[in-house]
Amino acid sequence: MVMDKPIILVSNDDGVNSKGILALARSLRRVGDVYVVAPERERSAVSHSLTLHKPLRVEKLGRKMYAVSGTPTDCINIAINSILPKRPALVVSGVNKGANLGDDITYSGTVSAAIEGTLLYVPSFAVSLVSKVSLDFSTAVKFSVKLARYILKNGLPKDTLLNVNVPSKEKIKGYKITRQGKRVYGDAIVEKIDPRGKKYYWIGGNELSWEGGKDTDFYFVSRGYISITPLHLDMTNYDSFEELRKIKI
Amino acid sequence: MVMDKPIILVSNDDGVNSKGILALARSLRRVGDVYVVAPERERSAVSHSLTLHKPLRVEKLGRKMYAVSGTPTDCINIAINSILPKRPALVVSGVNKGANLGDDITYSGTVSAAIEGTLLYVPSFAVSLVSKVSLDFSTAVKFSVKLARYILKNGLPKDTLLNVNVPSKEKIKGYKITRQGKRVYGDAIVEKIDPRGKKYYWIGGNELSWEGGKDTDFYFVSRGYISITPLHLDMTNYDSFEELRKIKI
Repeated sequence: MVMDKPIILVSNDDGVNSKGILALARSLRRVGDVYVVAPERERSAVSHSLTLHKPLRVEKLGRKMYAVSGTPTDCINIAINSILPKRPALVVSGVNKGANLGDDITYSGTVSAAIEGTLLYVPSFAVSLVSKVSLDFSTAVKFSVKLARYILKNGLPKDTLLNVNVPSKEKIKGYKITRQGKRVYGDAIVEKIDPRGKKYYWIGGNELSWEGGKDTDFYFVSRGYISITPLHLDMTNYDSFEELRKIKI
Repeated sequence: MVMDKPIILVSNDDGVNSKGILALARSLRRVGDVYVVAPERERSAVSHSLTLHKPLRVEKLGRKMYAVSGTPTDCINIAINSILPKRPALVVSGVNKGANLGDDITYSGTVSAAIEGTLLYVPSFAVSLVSKVSLDFSTAVKFSVKLARYILKNGLPKDTLLNVNVPSKEKIKGYKITRQGKRVYGDAIVEKIDPRGKKYYWIGGNELSWEGGKDTDFYFVSRGYISITPLHLDMTNYDSFEELRKIKI
């Protein structure tokens, strides 16, 4: 009797044809029965959007490979509820082209796919390559395969996903369990005039500056470590309860 | 000498012309210099999306009232970085038509506007009316004015926003400081055939079922209380550190 391999659902926000997801899916086939269900085009910074007001199209691109006309969250939702033959044992989102560190995860389509997996009770992790230029996903892919093997065997803490960021350095020093850092924001808006004389705005980028000390994702990534941040979906600030319970409105 | 009133920035995800935001803005004028900067159309469930890949248009609809061709997050970002004459003292997002409770806040455009305000260091709260049918925003608006007055005087705990949900009952019992509950998910996908014979998918709704005990937002709202949940942006699951630090990958 042949044991069924566990199903691994792979998605991302760079789109189904991006180099990062293809490299990841290929290598994960060593540890599971891989299905790729990803946005048909890049959906970066769509955050945890769910498409409620229009229909979604699913295109089968190949064996166990699907493009969805929606967000990463839509992909996970449709895959688990409609496409897969049975529930996946693991959701892996990535490898993202670019970091997902600190508060930026609230904008991240890559992390949101892992959030949706977690909401649907499937152990999930997101993996990102910390580089604006490199397309060498090999270290990130290798580490993802090891992590997938670990999670398939041992599971994850309840309601917890992992946000993994891999530096693009040649020598990786190892990995660290980190906490989410906090970016110091300096969002710039670019204001311009279009060819028809009308004003438009474009949201600019951020400087890579952060606060939060020596146990954060930012800190260890900048020092050549792979950062693993365990995230949960409970955003309640329990520390503020005492202060807030005193208020009179 | 006339003291300048503090600037209050009002946004939402139901769109700039929705009844909830207009009622809110009108009443907040009693406590501040109100600017409305909101999406030109409904943007529900866009979560914390930031529009990076295309230009945004801002249309001035009237005195201190602007429509943006983007998400609630875009609105707050553009308002603070470009539109307002100086930094606002408060961001208020709402009144949303429908609840934003439990894990659903990870999808919520209404809450994401308050998240963006918080990321940009402005005290912020989101306010939602817990009803699928009622358009009577009066209780929610009245409470928002009181809360705005309190926050303008006393501030909020650092990096913390408030997620306020107001039941649509006639008799409100009061308000409670609550924690974020957890929805029991049952997302259904509807699979159909379009007029041209092609398959499409539509993401369905959820049942209002939840877990998490007697101190949650769900619990108190269902019992006729206004729920105030303090949220922060640090999603790190600190409780899992001990377990995860033992792992060997």
